[in-house]
Amino acid sequence: MTRIIQSISVRDIRFPTSLEKDGSDATNLAPDYSCAYVSMTTKDGLKGYGITFTLGRGNNIVCEGIKLLTELVVGKDLDEIFGNFAQFWWDLTNAQQIRWLGPDKGVMHMAVAGICNAIWDLWARIEGKPLWKLLVDMSPEQLVSTIDFTYLEDALTKDEAIDILVKMKEGKEEREKEMKANGFPAYITSCGWLGYSEEKITRLLMETQEKGFTRFKAKVGADIEDDKRRLKVFREKLMPGNLLMVDANQKWEIQEAIDWMKQLAEYGITWIEEPTSPDDVLGHLEISKALASHGIGVATGEQCQNKVMFKQFLKSGAMQFCQIDSCRLGGVSENLAVILMAKKYGVPVCPHAGGVGLCEYVQHLSIFDYISVAGSLDKRMCEFADHLHEHFYEPARVKNGCYVAPEKPGYSIEMYPESLDKYEWPAGGEWQRLSTANLIQL
Amino acid sequence: MTRIIQSISVRDIRFPTSLEKDGSDATNLAPDYSCAYVSMTTKDGLKGYGITFTLGRGNNIVCEGIKLLTELVVGKDLDEIFGNFAQFWWDLTNAQQIRWLGPDKGVMHMAVAGICNAIWDLWARIEGKPLWKLLVDMSPEQLVSTIDFTYLEDALTKDEAIDILVKMKEGKEEREKEMKANGFPAYITSCGWLGYSEEKITRLLMETQEKGFTRFKAKVGADIEDDKRRLKVFREKLMPGNLLMVDANQKWEIQEAIDWMKQLAEYGITWIEEPTSPDDVLGHLEISKALASHGIGVATGEQCQNKVMFKQFLKSGAMQFCQIDSCRLGGVSENLAVILMAKKYGVPVCPHAGGVGLCEYVQHLSIFDYISVAGSLDKRMCEFADHLHEHFYEPARVKNGCYVAPEKPGYSIEMYPESLDKYEWPAGGEWQRLSTANLIQL
Repeated sequence: MTRIIQSISVRDIRFPTSLEKDGSDATNLAPDYSCAYVSMTTKDGLKGYGITFTLGRGNNIVCEGIKLLTELVVGKDLDEIFGNFAQFWWDLTNAQQIRWLGPDKGVMHMAVAGICNAIWDLWARIEGKPLWKLLVDMSPEQLVSTIDFTYLEDALTKDEAIDILVKMKEGKEEREKEMKANGFPAYITSCGWLGYSEEKITRLLMETQEKGFTRFKAKVGADIEDDKRRLKVFREKLMPGNLLMVDANQKWEIQEAIDWMKQLAEYGITWIEEPTSPDDVLGHLEISKALASHGIGVATGEQCQNKVMFKQFLKSGAMQFCQIDSCRLGGVSENLAVILMAKKYGVPVCPHAGGVGLCEYVQHLSIFDYISVAGSLDKRMCEFADHLHEHFYEPARVKNGCYVAPEKPGYSIEMYPESLDKYEWPAGGEWQRLSTANLIQL
Repeated sequence: MTRIIQSISVRDIRFPTSLEKDGSDATNLAPDYSCAYVSMTTKDGLKGYGITFTLGRGNNIVCEGIKLLTELVVGKDLDEIFGNFAQFWWDLTNAQQIRWLGPDKGVMHMAVAGICNAIWDLWARIEGKPLWKLLVDMSPEQLVSTIDFTYLEDALTKDEAIDILVKMKEGKEEREKEMKANGFPAYITSCGWLGYSEEKITRLLMETQEKGFTRFKAKVGADIEDDKRRLKVFREKLMPGNLLMVDANQKWEIQEAIDWMKQLAEYGITWIEEPTSPDDVLGHLEISKALASHGIGVATGEQCQNKVMFKQFLKSGAMQFCQIDSCRLGGVSENLAVILMAKKYGVPVCPHAGGVGLCEYVQHLSIFDYISVAGSLDKRMCEFADHLHEHFYEPARVKNGCYVAPEKPGYSIEMYPESLDKYEWPAGGEWQRLSTANLIQL
């Protein structure tokens, strides 16, 4: 069988979520959840799909980045890629001339994610397994062979990574059974957007707790009194022991973050997420140290650009919760590098999700992490938001506050053709309708 | 007068430098020096020009990024921008939806640079001054009003920045006279590319020393024995006291960098440039500490993505030489932020140049730095490479090993229309000729 990658196409898919103000926070007021949608076809007719998530404008730039990388990937033999994925990834991220646009950050790295996610989808489909199971069943050596360790030697060597996986073999079968039976713990963000009234928060907390959620996140950072008001409602309406996290979406300076969060400590905050610039390792370290005695950890990662940044956050103690992103890092294998480093430095991985497709993706990474790497659910949970799942063949599902382990082969990101046609930007039916109705300007 | 920005256009300009292997190093083997070339026109007919430099492939992606930002800039009043440049810059870099693609890094930030550099060019032309002089003549308050201080509070406040400028008023006139008379010290990279023979290095060192150069940089990192061979030639052929720097172009792991450089210390190395990932602040800090006793400083910055990263490098002691880049940071004002932070932390600024247009740009920043901020030439020098200057109306000029202070109004980046037509990619005459002659594939 010749598994040559014959063609790669990319479509600019955008959902007009800004019209409803879903997902607005202190920094991102009006996102249109969007993705560059990659379809990959092999000579023998296999198909794989990948996305990169964005907030709307500029999604076309990521699509252009993917088209640029396409020429480096079309014609390659999948079996050769799978045989030395680390080398393939290095070649892609270090491509002559293109590397200057990064390295490993921003638009071009997000383009790498779109391509690599599609290749991992193909791999899982070929093996007839959901992605998490493909990873779980790999030997430690094979799994580690997919990871590029460039610039990681001072934090995690290949041998250390293999050691971690070998040591965690014990109990893997039980943990896999547990995941299939109970799923992976989720937390929910949609009860606590900025500006929600007491009534709305109360109603949403009642509904979500009835559904089995025990972990909640609220947005903070615009106004301290409003934050106190809403967090008070949370603590009054949450059952005892339920977890509460807050998210400032990069709003603060360092000292400002410390001062602000000290005022919110009384509400029992598990983590403050994105207190400041996502690039500021040393700033997060300072905040972490200042808030430790208040029982508040620092979480960040959804805009952490690559494994070198995660290395610094993890090694220095600048993050107490590691929020990997399936589309910001360069696909599955870079996420594996971060998951393994997090294990070494004892930091729980709590992936970023929401948007479109992110829940579908990161559930696989968390389930793998639990079974093969972390071996514990302590302080581990995966974000969930109930948006846009209806467009996927295998939508993420949450039951009793836990992600249900996906069962179909692949990485769960294939979308319905009707959805793609309807939301393709700017020619898709929905965008044309909104434009004709003067609800938006194209 | 209405100084409304009426139109912005961008052209994809590439020079086929890879055919000659100019500028090859351990990481970048075959760059085609390129730029996204921005032309900006106001309603009253003023014109300004800006570029973002790239290595070729992907230059079109930066052009697309610039087109995306154009809609945020066209229609704006220049006087309003000049009145609160910091706000304009913040709005551009925090634009809704687009921010997700960064923030402040990679393709979109380089696009910001192209736009902002053009606006600064317009500003200098309006004032009838070369850019360095525009900056030198600004009051401390006005200059600082162009800088966005977001995320910098823990390193440099607005008041501290003003203080620095006020304190340095003394002696400004003398320093300006000195710059006009002698220019700003340059160093030259083109004698020491990887793989050069002893004869070639010797010839180039003789020629450049005769021209007055006293500061030299060699590439290292591919092979330790070859590095020793070439550095030995440098030290034999350089006059006593002349400076020698080396550049590894991100080739090493942390410990590898330390071990390698200890072996080269005997050649009297002023700095090791880009020893490892440009994102690794803590790695550079470790290298800095290990090499300090060997008299070797660490230099980095040409791929340092933004002011938050520079803040960490400067504040922590991870860089001993600060290599700002005029097109990687978001234009002049972000460079001003870094120059002022470098002053506070006592780190000399030695800009990255070469490529196409970078020498034309950074000479302005260095001359301003000396006159208004640093007040000293100790350990300060600006890279020079003798490539592609013939395409500019006011090419960078070096005399007696020093950049000659530019005299024409603007930021020195306007190119001849014939050059633009000839090197526009892919339709320009030179690219068509190379393609027809089968020397390249378009």
